[in-house]
Amino acid sequence: MKSYEPGQGRKTAALRGSFMCGSLLYTMHEKYMRMALKQAHVAQTKDEVPVGAIIVKDGKVIARAHNLRERTQRALAHAEILVIDKACRKLNTWRLEGCVLYVTLEPCAMCAGASILARLDGVVYGAKDPKAGSMGSIINLAEISQYNHHPWVIEGILAEECGQILSDFFKLKREK
Amino acid sequence: MKSYEPGQGRKTAALRGSFMCGSLLYTMHEKYMRMALKQAHVAQTKDEVPVGAIIVKDGKVIARAHNLRERTQRALAHAEILVIDKACRKLNTWRLEGCVLYVTLEPCAMCAGASILARLDGVVYGAKDPKAGSMGSIINLAEISQYNHHPWVIEGILAEECGQILSDFFKLKREK
Repeated sequence: MKSYEPGQGRKTAALRGSFMCGSLLYTMHEKYMRMALKQAHVAQTKDEVPVGAIIVKDGKVIARAHNLRERTQRALAHAEILVIDKACRKLNTWRLEGCVLYVTLEPCAMCAGASILARLDGVVYGAKDPKAGSMGSIINLAEISQYNHHPWVIEGILAEECGQILSDFFKLKREK
Repeated sequence: MKSYEPGQGRKTAALRGSFMCGSLLYTMHEKYMRMALKQAHVAQTKDEVPVGAIIVKDGKVIARAHNLRERTQRALAHAEILVIDKACRKLNTWRLEGCVLYVTLEPCAMCAGASILARLDGVVYGAKDPKAGSMGSIINLAEISQYNHHPWVIEGILAEECGQILSDFFKLKREK
């Protein structure tokens, strides 16, 4: 996977990605996003807001996690934080260079910040989050030039499926 | 402690705080910041970047932590994240309403985001961080109106001491 230059925006990254490898790259992103979606489904079975994430390095999935905030009552138990923590433990380093995060929902400020802190190469997400999304919707923290790391960001991979599982979850909650 | 209205900026909060209770409030902030500084000193003894944090609720310190990133090799092991996690476990809730975070260094994007996510009432910090600070220096995430929670922010409590311990640490590192 191409690692983009610091400071490049998500749109540039997405366009360059598409231009470089075309549908092959898109298929790869879809494959990994399906794995993240599987994690979202696991969260759903636990009555958690269905968001799932995986981390990929050198073509291998090195960590999987899903949102567990209600079950654990930990503010930090977002899928991205849990998966970054798992990846750090697995590789025994806080520098997740060469790693890409796939997550079904656009990261919030905490998770976008964690992606920068962990020096992830890139972040690929599915559905946008207009209420808290901090990698394109409200703000894009990956584009703040003063920070010392700038993961590239690609949005909208399996966006409909990633959003649908959330809509269904909240609809069911309201009906109950 | 006064809880400020959502959306109020750190400067407003600081000024209103000073106006309301004057030196008494400042003395209280200093007292708690000294406890956070103690945690920073513990980090220093472990050869970690000396940043310390505590969380206070109803005048009681409910959690203490210090930066442990190198020792644990976890990207998330900033003092703020660890102390928020401890507080959630202690209170058995991810909603840290009524809680105030004291931290010796201005929070980064991840930690500022975590403060918002955890619904902290407020954040008091010592030294500013021009390289990564995300509660006033580079950006103030607590002021982004679209987010659903806005902790008040007070900066500069024991700023000199909080900054000095960091300068000394990095000076010693360079000399070595």
